[in-house]
Amino acid sequence: MRESGEQAVDLNDLTKSTGEWLRGVGPESDIVISSRIRLARNLAEFPFISRTDDQQRAQIEKLMSEVVHQWRDDGDLLYLDLESLSNIDRHLLVERHLISRELAEGRGPRAVAIDPNETFSLMINEEDHLRLQVLQSGFDLKAVWEKVNRIDDIIEQRVVYAFHEHLGYLTACPTNVGTGLRVSVMLHLPALVITRQIEKVFRSLQKINLAVRGLFGEGSQAMGDFYQISNQITLGRSEEELIRQVSEVVPVIIDYERQAREFLIKESHESLHDRVSRAFGILCTAQTISSEETMHLLSSVRMGVNLGLLPDLKIPSVNELFIRTQPAHLQKLAGGELETTDRNIERARFLHRYLNQESGGQAYGDAN
Amino acid sequence: MRESGEQAVDLNDLTKSTGEWLRGVGPESDIVISSRIRLARNLAEFPFISRTDDQQRAQIEKLMSEVVHQWRDDGDLLYLDLESLSNIDRHLLVERHLISRELAEGRGPRAVAIDPNETFSLMINEEDHLRLQVLQSGFDLKAVWEKVNRIDDIIEQRVVYAFHEHLGYLTACPTNVGTGLRVSVMLHLPALVITRQIEKVFRSLQKINLAVRGLFGEGSQAMGDFYQISNQITLGRSEEELIRQVSEVVPVIIDYERQAREFLIKESHESLHDRVSRAFGILCTAQTISSEETMHLLSSVRMGVNLGLLPDLKIPSVNELFIRTQPAHLQKLAGGELETTDRNIERARFLHRYLNQESGGQAYGDAN
Repeated sequence: MRESGEQAVDLNDLTKSTGEWLRGVGPESDIVISSRIRLARNLAEFPFISRTDDQQRAQIEKLMSEVVHQWRDDGDLLYLDLESLSNIDRHLLVERHLISRELAEGRGPRAVAIDPNETFSLMINEEDHLRLQVLQSGFDLKAVWEKVNRIDDIIEQRVVYAFHEHLGYLTACPTNVGTGLRVSVMLHLPALVITRQIEKVFRSLQKINLAVRGLFGEGSQAMGDFYQISNQITLGRSEEELIRQVSEVVPVIIDYERQAREFLIKESHESLHDRVSRAFGILCTAQTISSEETMHLLSSVRMGVNLGLLPDLKIPSVNELFIRTQPAHLQKLAGGELETTDRNIERARFLHRYLNQESGGQAYGDAN
Repeated sequence: MRESGEQAVDLNDLTKSTGEWLRGVGPESDIVISSRIRLARNLAEFPFISRTDDQQRAQIEKLMSEVVHQWRDDGDLLYLDLESLSNIDRHLLVERHLISRELAEGRGPRAVAIDPNETFSLMINEEDHLRLQVLQSGFDLKAVWEKVNRIDDIIEQRVVYAFHEHLGYLTACPTNVGTGLRVSVMLHLPALVITRQIEKVFRSLQKINLAVRGLFGEGSQAMGDFYQISNQITLGRSEEELIRQVSEVVPVIIDYERQAREFLIKESHESLHDRVSRAFGILCTAQTISSEETMHLLSSVRMGVNLGLLPDLKIPSVNELFIRTQPAHLQKLAGGELETTDRNIERARFLHRYLNQESGGQAYGDAN
């Protein structure tokens, strides 16, 4: 077990690659980025976080740290005390989907345990005492559920969860009461965006009580044509029922996206190819580029790779770029805080270097 | 002397390079593309073109063909009968600035004599019986004037020009009467466009009776940030006076453009570099591209090369692209007429191939 002591942990290792969930493997991985399930859990012996003081939070953190240590004493886990991390490191974890923005920007004793391939994370003292997450590449909610359920059982052997006979798991926010479960699938839907069918899909999803969010969850914009589909209801249904609903809806959306891609290839092949190719050209040659534009262009490139229009590039590399061009990753790379202007320059340099490498030294714009 | 007989002349040789005036050499050639002087002349023994019938035009054409043959019997001249050329070939000559659009799209007997490096052309039966042009790379009106004046003398030894003691040379349109001279300098002024100073420059030029036109002369838009500055007055002043006025004004504009470029480099280096680099990237990767967009992007690239921001490219290559991406050149290359959509695809392919070659196999977008 590696852990963050009093000195800051060096998270540089994390920035050199991306987690398992971006590997671009697993079922339907041309469209489904990742499958994720998180469970909200609270300890019966403590009040909810909003009613705790720092001392109680420190107790929770200490208790959970011990639980994690006992349970995984093979060293195969990274335990990070968020208070001792820098602002950049905390946001690095957010960008990698290992912790929530709320945990990063909160205060007081709080921590996260992560397994090395970033499939599992356990947030301590977020909105609830515990937030367990399993996140995996491709569309495989069954595997994800089995894994998170197993870990949940392991933890439950060591602590007493706040549980009500009728209501189920008790949570800080009533929207999570019951199963405490949120199942979400991240989809890449560029063709539905181009063909302007995405709004129709959203309206259908809302009607059956599924939520649609952006790449970075609640409140985030759908940058790069990424959409997270997740359940809104947690109460009155079993975990299996909640998972089944999402499992049944996602293939329908995948099918819509495939049809839209086929339509674009058939009806406007040149303009699709042009969009994809130019997006790649701009990413290779820009000298300054915003995060939004990068996501937007990478989205076209990602679809282009899936459609065989950019044979030199691979999906894992493109997936990786979505994360490694985020602000905290760039600042980590640069070794310190950067203003937006400098970040945009740093981002362009990173893209140029990275794509130059990926396409075998074929990149343009070596004018510096 | 090569000439077009009854069968169409193959102008393929012309499409493989560009004329002397695009070589990017000569004084101030970072900003001044070319210097040009044309003389309007008419033969005393014939009415003006608008009052001639086809028979008379045929006579003029025949007479001038003989004059040209006598004068240049060393074979070093291409004589083209425009009636026997295809539509594409006629527009090819327009795009190369060897004939006017009016001559290309006119009817009846008409011809042009061109020297192999395309410095000199003599249009027969345009608006006037004769239009002599000398066009040369860079800013050197003195050399251009000497050359066109010498050729004018040679022709005048063989024909009688319509000349009036008080008015000077008589021309079909009163705006050319007197010297029959138009002196024009083609400038590339991207920095004055970016810094929005170009309108101010135009207003100043209009006040002193100088005209501003686009790359393809009268009525053409200023695509690619190219501007032709020329005299509007032809009467009441000597040739030397008319040439002197343009010669004195151009250095002032060159100076403005240089200052604007320096300002851009100093005040917004990153954004300038970004504009140049992206323009190059798009030209390399587009799969379909209009003529307007090509000109616009090439303009940024041309400035970038001059400012050392794109070290792999050379000015003559960029100059060449401005002409070789024009519609008739692309159709000539493709071997037949093309609709706009297909031209835009052909243009993108040509740019990709050409830039790939120029930058030593570094071009992107080999996704076809």
